Amino acid sequence: MSDKSDRLEFNLHSRRRSPIRIVALKLTPVAIADPPLRSSYGLHAPYALRTIIELRSEDGLVGIAEAHGGEKALADFERVRGVVEGADAYALGKLARGVDDIFLGPRLVGANGTVDRSQTHYVPGENPNDVPLRIYAALETAALDLIGRAHGVPVSDLLGGRVRDEVPFAAYLFYKHAGGGGEGDDEREDEYGEAMTPDGIVAQAAAMTRRYGFQSYKLKAGVLPPEVEVETILALYDAFGPRAPQRIDPNSVWSHETAVDVATRLYGKLEYLEDPVAGLDGMGRLHDAMRENGTPIPLASNVAVTHFGDVPEMVRRKSAQIILGDHHYWGGPRAMAQLGRLCETFGIGLSMHSNSHLGISLVAMAHVAAATSRLTYACDTHYPWQADEDEVIEGGRVPIVDGAVRVPTGPGLGVTIDQDRLARGRERYERVPYRKRDDTAEMRKHVDPAWKRLVPAW
Amino acid sequence: MSDKSDRLEFNLHSRRRSPIRIVALKLTPVAIADPPLRSSYGLHAPYALRTIIELRSEDGLVGIAEAHGGEKALADFERVRGVVEGADAYALGKLARGVDDIFLGPRLVGANGTVDRSQTHYVPGENPNDVPLRIYAALETAALDLIGRAHGVPVSDLLGGRVRDEVPFAAYLFYKHAGGGGEGDDEREDEYGEAMTPDGIVAQAAAMTRRYGFQSYKLKAGVLPPEVEVETILALYDAFGPRAPQRIDPNSVWSHETAVDVATRLYGKLEYLEDPVAGLDGMGRLHDAMRENGTPIPLASNVAVTHFGDVPEMVRRKSAQIILGDHHYWGGPRAMAQLGRLCETFGIGLSMHSNSHLGISLVAMAHVAAATSRLTYACDTHYPWQADEDEVIEGGRVPIVDGAVRVPTGPGLGVTIDQDRLARGRERYERVPYRKRDDTAEMRKHVDPAWKRLVPAW
Repeated sequence: MSDKSDRLEFNLHSRRRSPIRIVALKLTPVAIADPPLRSSYGLHAPYALRTIIELRSEDGLVGIAEAHGGEKALADFERVRGVVEGADAYALGKLARGVDDIFLGPRLVGANGTVDRSQTHYVPGENPNDVPLRIYAALETAALDLIGRAHGVPVSDLLGGRVRDEVPFAAYLFYKHAGGGGEGDDEREDEYGEAMTPDGIVAQAAAMTRRYGFQSYKLKAGVLPPEVEVETILALYDAFGPRAPQRIDPNSVWSHETAVDVATRLYGKLEYLEDPVAGLDGMGRLHDAMRENGTPIPLASNVAVTHFGDVPEMVRRKSAQIILGDHHYWGGPRAMAQLGRLCETFGIGLSMHSNSHLGISLVAMAHVAAATSRLTYACDTHYPWQADEDEVIEGGRVPIVDGAVRVPTGPGLGVTIDQDRLARGRERYERVPYRKRDDTAEMRKHVDPAWKRLVPAW
Repeated sequence: MSDKSDRLEFNLHSRRRSPIRIVALKLTPVAIADPPLRSSYGLHAPYALRTIIELRSEDGLVGIAEAHGGEKALADFERVRGVVEGADAYALGKLARGVDDIFLGPRLVGANGTVDRSQTHYVPGENPNDVPLRIYAALETAALDLIGRAHGVPVSDLLGGRVRDEVPFAAYLFYKHAGGGGEGDDEREDEYGEAMTPDGIVAQAAAMTRRYGFQSYKLKAGVLPPEVEVETILALYDAFGPRAPQRIDPNSVWSHETAVDVATRLYGKLEYLEDPVAGLDGMGRLHDAMRENGTPIPLASNVAVTHFGDVPEMVRRKSAQIILGDHHYWGGPRAMAQLGRLCETFGIGLSMHSNSHLGISLVAMAHVAAATSRLTYACDTHYPWQADEDEVIEGGRVPIVDGAVRVPTGPGLGVTIDQDRLARGRERYERVPYRKRDDTAEMRKHVDPAWKRLVPAW
């Protein structure tokens, strides 16, 4: 007896479904005013660049996403147009493979012969080894938005349903020169003023707290001598008390000795120490040293650990106890749910990394975080540094109240694009003279013509 | 300035969606004829017990799933009725938490003081530590079926879209006494006859291959002396050639020395060695010994490794190189996608475990496997051992052609329940005198009154 005949009969029972067919990929580069923030990568330029992605279905629905920006990003998105247009929004596994295949080829290889996806030597969004993941992540986000819109359900539901209705974010404090973002007609108010001292940062934190109600604080460090940055954390601790968690993040530019010393001085006052030194091995060595010294501060990472491929060595070497994931980098919202399970499995904490971004990225982060039961810390966001004039979603900026974003309950991401606002973002992009993020160039232009990122710098 | 007013405005943009509300949970215990198959747990009884789950939405749609069976399973499902009825089918994270909370309390603790979820001492489906996961897994499967039906999309799409249209399965070979499954009016044809020798197993494999076209073979072992089981594998190897992968699975009842010896004799002829010895440490020791001996056969597990919580030690100890996952045990279809990512991250192979089951479980496995890009081996299934008369889905048994199941393309799981067939399954359940799987009792009744499962037995 053969089952061949049964099989035909069986297939008769299966009604062929209509996929949500994507018929058009629309890419809009935008520039958004960004204040002169400092980090160990250098200085933020007057504009940050982003790409707004719109996927139109044959039914005329539109799914949206926001990604890293500039000319290279646009060109990379253009390269995948052929696998996106005509695809089924549900066929994400196939889409991921299609994107991968397009970028197939030798990856840039680091000194130790492995593919280096760290952000030790690249500003976030510029590591060429991450291209397919970053491109796919944006497409997946837009595809999920499209699916959600088609069925009237929020993206958080497509990720397993929210386990929280509000997602907490931390105040992201930066040493900063005077001046708001943008230039000329686009010049924005210098809402927070200069902050190049401990007192300046405390004032910045206070102003940001008044406006947004943040309940935890992260200081972008690696900018001033470590003793000043330690002093800054101590001043924040004095100002906001032990119940407001503090974090410090020099983006891997401290030496082992400096990091050990900072840990000794800040032990008991930090929620976690983020990428104090470079590399999985360096972080592991620091972990060991802090334990030996009796100052075991948890290590968090989004510089040494940027990819699933980093996790086995991170676990083996105990390089970090907390991963700062990011759906933009780790391969999309679904990858973040998978990262959540992986973190739960290995007892790793999970929070979220951010770059300069608009509201589409913020609500996408909120949906992802809402559906991730493992989320153990308030997420990062640069959002307070952007201005309402530059937001591209209808109704203007997404509110942050009591330090949290309320996860939209409408279909998809729950926000839609205001095409006039988007057009203004594109006009700004056309006016901006640069086409990639280059914090080093900015630093040389405005602060020190000879400046160079050093790892370690202190 | 406060964002409170913006927030109200913002929420106006969010249209509140209608969830897919579950209004009724229907549980139907069924008994299905099962032939006298042998394993190290003992002897399969004339009937296997399963539970059929139906979730009805307020719109009158029905989502289905199949789970482990018997009185205890039914009672466990009854305990969660309150968190299921009234729930939103999309709110899976909340449902999982609700189920967990109900079964909260001390877990049975093993000799080493940890929660033991292994199947070393329990037949699959009877480990009390797994109850909340097993219950939730079935509910999630039915909820996904419901969502798929509501939107006209297959479950594989809700898991990220299929990366394969057909899912390969292996022939699951058993030492077997004469006789078909069932008793009295339910007695089924003894399709494969007795198979208590190497030749008997080769004949069984040949018959199963003729009917289903299987291209890989798994022998349930731990039944006869290891030398006979080794001889059986060698006979299969001779009969089907080196291109038909062989696997052997004694369910952890070999001693270290026996397993080392089997590995030496079968090196080069096995695709993998499945749970030859008990425990993560035992498996790790065997791995080390095989490497030292130059006979490094990959180890697979679903006895020592049954849960995400086992993975860190498994990775550390190199206890297994392949996980045989199972959406029924690991927490549902979405957990399997997460397990796939975890396996990819750590370079672990992935295939699927099976218990005696009907077509609902088979198509659920097919959807899960179709959407899991990490699947590296043909899956296990007991399905050929069940009879068409016992199938509960409309149109009868799901076809297996060329060793593969074609993933249904209709909404949800793509199969529906035939209520007459289901009623007959329930009638059989009522007639069967036992209410749980007890392979030991069967073994004592029919083979050896003094039989006892020993670990190790050989």
